[in-house]
Amino acid sequence: MTPVDAPVVPRHLRELAGLTGDEYGAQRVAWTDRWVTARDWLRAQLAGIPGVEVHTDPAGNIWATLPGERERSVVVGGHLDSVPNGGWLDGALNVTAALEVLRAVAAGPRPALTLRLVDWADEEGARFGRSLVGSSACAGTLDPESLRGLSDRDGVALPDALAAQGVELDRMLEAGAELRDVAAYLELHIEQGPVLERIDRPLAVVTGIFGLQRHVVRFRGAHAHAGATPMDMRRDAFLAAARSAPAFRETALRRPETRATIGSVAVAPGIVTAFNGLCELTLDQRAPDAGVVAEMVEEARGASLRIAAEEDCEVEWAPQFAQEPVAFDARLVESAAEVLEDLTGAPAPRLPSGPLHDAAEMARRVPAVMLFVRSIGGVSHTKDEDTSVEDLELSVRALHDLTLRTIEAPWTSA
Amino acid sequence: MTPVDAPVVPRHLRELAGLTGDEYGAQRVAWTDRWVTARDWLRAQLAGIPGVEVHTDPAGNIWATLPGERERSVVVGGHLDSVPNGGWLDGALNVTAALEVLRAVAAGPRPALTLRLVDWADEEGARFGRSLVGSSACAGTLDPESLRGLSDRDGVALPDALAAQGVELDRMLEAGAELRDVAAYLELHIEQGPVLERIDRPLAVVTGIFGLQRHVVRFRGAHAHAGATPMDMRRDAFLAAARSAPAFRETALRRPETRATIGSVAVAPGIVTAFNGLCELTLDQRAPDAGVVAEMVEEARGASLRIAAEEDCEVEWAPQFAQEPVAFDARLVESAAEVLEDLTGAPAPRLPSGPLHDAAEMARRVPAVMLFVRSIGGVSHTKDEDTSVEDLELSVRALHDLTLRTIEAPWTSA
Repeated sequence: MTPVDAPVVPRHLRELAGLTGDEYGAQRVAWTDRWVTARDWLRAQLAGIPGVEVHTDPAGNIWATLPGERERSVVVGGHLDSVPNGGWLDGALNVTAALEVLRAVAAGPRPALTLRLVDWADEEGARFGRSLVGSSACAGTLDPESLRGLSDRDGVALPDALAAQGVELDRMLEAGAELRDVAAYLELHIEQGPVLERIDRPLAVVTGIFGLQRHVVRFRGAHAHAGATPMDMRRDAFLAAARSAPAFRETALRRPETRATIGSVAVAPGIVTAFNGLCELTLDQRAPDAGVVAEMVEEARGASLRIAAEEDCEVEWAPQFAQEPVAFDARLVESAAEVLEDLTGAPAPRLPSGPLHDAAEMARRVPAVMLFVRSIGGVSHTKDEDTSVEDLELSVRALHDLTLRTIEAPWTSA
Repeated sequence: MTPVDAPVVPRHLRELAGLTGDEYGAQRVAWTDRWVTARDWLRAQLAGIPGVEVHTDPAGNIWATLPGERERSVVVGGHLDSVPNGGWLDGALNVTAALEVLRAVAAGPRPALTLRLVDWADEEGARFGRSLVGSSACAGTLDPESLRGLSDRDGVALPDALAAQGVELDRMLEAGAELRDVAAYLELHIEQGPVLERIDRPLAVVTGIFGLQRHVVRFRGAHAHAGATPMDMRRDAFLAAARSAPAFRETALRRPETRATIGSVAVAPGIVTAFNGLCELTLDQRAPDAGVVAEMVEEARGASLRIAAEEDCEVEWAPQFAQEPVAFDARLVESAAEVLEDLTGAPAPRLPSGPLHDAAEMARRVPAVMLFVRSIGGVSHTKDEDTSVEDLELSVRALHDLTLRTIEAPWTSA
């Protein structure tokens, strides 16, 4: 068995950052020139591995295939695209790690199953606002019509930007053919959160991805003059929202492993000399179980109705976005836990993922699992995003071990 | 004694609205053509009153003087300028009512004291952001240097706009000479609030004008991802601000006749997928006593410090504006109360004024008082601003009666 060259991964990531980033961070936004540069770098690397076939599917995803004894395959991968002014790891770590796993396996005897690397197109959705584009096309959950009207800040239409990369909207779902005989999908990612740092552990098995509901919550009262209106005659929409905010948070505080977040907040008229007749905020609620998310929404809605009435205001809730939760494959979760325990000599932490990942799309179609590696300070989507070289190397070894174990598992060959 | 022609005032106000407003409301913004049109209308009206001398002072205030037995004078007035899309009454009522008071007194025997009407220049500060321009120049509290750098939205410099109306910045304080021998200043204004409507009374005596302190309050935490960050590891600046908001309001709720208002509210990053690391709001606190305002500020500051600490955030307070309270002249307040009781047959309501008025500047230099007339729905600074014709006429009679009583009061002649 050829060992994986873990130390080359941080070096590759730095090389990629130099090629496609600047002083403000990573600039590998999907469907732009720097993303193309990053993918050309990947293609050049793949060309150096004998016996690997490379092609791009109708959704723009790059696939590299190392044939095994059987056509049935294990897929490892992620995405090279980043947000603007992004970090050097989010996305690129999973692809560069998968590259070394593929290289190590290719250097050994022909594997029992086929091993494939995938670089998903446009995980971040940073340019056109729709994330998980390539993986959802492949999973068949994308409605290409929903993309047709999108355009970027400069007015470039999404269909034109995709066509420039050889992707036709009407044919994107044909990428689904890539999943014909896939036994498992494996993805390594930085945590993007502070939990592993807090518990002082380098790696975790991801048990699933939170379901979420997002609402715009609008409180309406009536604005009037700050000096002329007595306190007991006010219908202050901001006060109604402010009093509701702790109740919204409470829906997550009282339940383990859930989240409730107030993101955007806007008031009107928003001037110094008046209280506000309107306050609009977004509430994002997440939990590993869709029923729990629904309960949290109802609890928050009830609190807002009660508080709005007390403040002589009205409140209305408009759904903005929802996502079903994903549970990763139980066999892969156990397998990954064993790999981490073997590597680190301690039981593996098991975490749900708050952020979405391409693995959420894959898990709808094939057995899937993810590994998280510790993020310094829990930050991502910024040039400050970081992970120690030691942790990065350990995570590459974990992905390699998990890949071998998955190829060899009796159930993947069934 | 010639009675005042109260019914002509609402008609004049409508005439003025037709001349200087549009479908969006009053457009008599100071130092603009429509304001000049309104003032030309006033000059034409004054020209129709025999024996009245009219001139404009070095701050742009128009004075009309009806000589009495003595040079010592009683001044009645207000301002014709409005905010953009303003109401038909704010400002114009006091000048048009004063015009009829002057006309009625001029039609009778020579009064014991001189009677003067003033139309203050730029009460609203709508174009350049500094209110009470003409009256503060006259009171000597204006620093003309503080105006020199101001410009409007189109980049027109304030000194140029004033020069176009014959006002030189360096000479504005010479307007102070107008106060040489003033016994009293009287001003009628719409309430701009809902109190008289609530207690079902048409008129009130204004006892003074609130002092106020305005602060920008900045809560700082650290933003992070809505999904990745567990609830107990957040430093959510908006939550710290939201929890402080009811405590800020409480500083006014627990004290009679005070106000505490959160006006502008801004968060950063203010996106759906993150909680906020920064929340900045303005807090405006008012009371009839400067010591009480200071107490309210300290109480709010203390609450914000405690709550910010609980939320693992910081908070800083930056003063933005402050105004000393004004108490109106006790003799004039009693006199006005008697006038209202005689007119309405019921004890006069006594209210403090939350909003600022030119009378606040005058009260620093001469005995002053104001009358409020009921506002429908408590709204102003909008075309929906309204007062019934019956109330308007009653308010004109009240101003007339108060003027006569003030001219005849033994103390004014002292």
